[in-house]
Amino acid sequence: MSRPVWPAASVFYTYRLDSHIQRMVEGVCAGDARQLARAITAVENRRPEAISILKSLFPASGRARVIGVTGAPGAGKSTLVDQLAREYRRRQKTVGIIAVDPTSPFSGGAILGDRIRMLSHHSDPGIYIRSMATRGALGGLARTTADVATLLDSSGRDLVLIETVGVGQDEVDIVRLADITVVMLVPGMGDDVQTIKAGIMEIADIFVINKSDREGAERVEREIRALQSLASRTDRWTPPIVKTVASEGAGIELLAAALDQYEQHLRQGTLLLEKKARSWRARLLEMLRDALLERVIHQQVGEGTVEQFATEVAEHKRDPYTLVEDLVAGLGRSS
Amino acid sequence: MSRPVWPAASVFYTYRLDSHIQRMVEGVCAGDARQLARAITAVENRRPEAISILKSLFPASGRARVIGVTGAPGAGKSTLVDQLAREYRRRQKTVGIIAVDPTSPFSGGAILGDRIRMLSHHSDPGIYIRSMATRGALGGLARTTADVATLLDSSGRDLVLIETVGVGQDEVDIVRLADITVVMLVPGMGDDVQTIKAGIMEIADIFVINKSDREGAERVEREIRALQSLASRTDRWTPPIVKTVASEGAGIELLAAALDQYEQHLRQGTLLLEKKARSWRARLLEMLRDALLERVIHQQVGEGTVEQFATEVAEHKRDPYTLVEDLVAGLGRSS
Repeated sequence: MSRPVWPAASVFYTYRLDSHIQRMVEGVCAGDARQLARAITAVENRRPEAISILKSLFPASGRARVIGVTGAPGAGKSTLVDQLAREYRRRQKTVGIIAVDPTSPFSGGAILGDRIRMLSHHSDPGIYIRSMATRGALGGLARTTADVATLLDSSGRDLVLIETVGVGQDEVDIVRLADITVVMLVPGMGDDVQTIKAGIMEIADIFVINKSDREGAERVEREIRALQSLASRTDRWTPPIVKTVASEGAGIELLAAALDQYEQHLRQGTLLLEKKARSWRARLLEMLRDALLERVIHQQVGEGTVEQFATEVAEHKRDPYTLVEDLVAGLGRSS
Repeated sequence: MSRPVWPAASVFYTYRLDSHIQRMVEGVCAGDARQLARAITAVENRRPEAISILKSLFPASGRARVIGVTGAPGAGKSTLVDQLAREYRRRQKTVGIIAVDPTSPFSGGAILGDRIRMLSHHSDPGIYIRSMATRGALGGLARTTADVATLLDSSGRDLVLIETVGVGQDEVDIVRLADITVVMLVPGMGDDVQTIKAGIMEIADIFVINKSDREGAERVEREIRALQSLASRTDRWTPPIVKTVASEGAGIELLAAALDQYEQHLRQGTLLLEKKARSWRARLLEMLRDALLERVIHQQVGEGTVEQFATEVAEHKRDPYTLVEDLVAGLGRSS
């Protein structure tokens, strides 16, 4: 409900690349990590120049394979993603990692953890890690993550790995943007704790049972199989189940092989294009919603009037349903 | 990203209450549980008549106190909410409960659990429970929950209790709509499991430490206190910490007393009105976003064109950022 309004300037930004943005765009295309970091910050904070940057870099994007990894809290996502990144590095592929953590324990452990991760890959410029700190940030997370993935893509990364906790609608929306979705489960957490958004199970292209040396791995596998027997996929793909112990690197090659196999499957006929078109449809609608609201609020209604309407509705002096109808009906008349 | 578009008919629905809707509206106002259930279903499924129903019932709403209860999975939310409902019934207040569960284990235990809850209150028409099954449902959850709360309110319920798992942005948005927000924590779950969205902690008006007979309750209390020393509220209210063992009914009276106290605090000056206005501001913007997108897609662009645009972007034949700018700029010209 409280998604922030995209800043006015961004939508009607006169298309003029000043030298600062020009340098940033060229730097990103050349794989310059520092300019990439600047571009990501601009997009993440929805700065006025964000749209220019994205417009300029879009043509350079479209080559990376985007892999989404999600699962319950504590499933070992970052460990698995790190191991997968190392595996791809062994194959001479460059990797970008976007770690989206919408939940945060008191201790602020997530941020500390990211620092440690950065250090462990520090010597390798072939791996770029960006943590999306959502503490305090409101909504629009899926859209921002998608734009950041486009930036990493345009910087020449072969793989973009997006990891997120699969607990809310935002997280379903995030992994839905990926070309390939990996859903992680762990044995022995019990139904009550192994809470991931129901919709997540249905969008899995590959299942991973991590910490599979623990008791209960077979039970989790049986549960996935039972679920699969109910599901109906239209693309004739049965999501394989890969068992891993990510902390020891076990099963990572198998996972990479499963990813390759699914990619081959996607490349048959028009499956990959269809999948990308579905994802872009959702992205376009979300961008359009933001831009339309932005235009109506800033050009027609005014922020102050919105506040006043809200107070009148709160005081029960005005019916919100009729108000919204009237605002939409007036569109184009007073513009 | 993939929020469904509000059906076209709803936005430009000619205001005419047919006898079927008239009966429903009158039934809801009279507290008829069956008509209430029908109205909720219409709103939940965003049927064309939903806006008429909400328009007709809005004037009858605005009297209920809306309380949001959120916390980590397994914190005991439904047990606490049930006990709180019983406490209010002892005080001769009628209660509506909206149970929103965006997560769902394989077992489908949530639905079974709701049936058991319904049965346990079956003999008491003073308690109405509605479970919002989000399995399969996409997005817009906060908006729908708010509309359902308005329906329960207009049916004459004194209290509306909204319970949800506090793990995603949607859930923050849901409890943000409440007049009073209760955040539940439990001892001994550890940082890794006690994952709730960071933003949730900041919007708590009252903290509950449930299962407080377990080891570690003091640690949780210290952590909340530490967090509070960092937070800055503008309303001069320090959220109290109430210890409960909901399964035994322990601490429920204390919680009800804390709720009363906060309500008294809210009623000082214009705090309650300000809080409601903030919540309506967010609701209005969300309603407007949906309605604007709806109008542009159905009246100007067309669903088929959106599909085509998405495919062109997926094929990299079109830059999505320029496309959206063009669509917004063309608004009002071709309408």
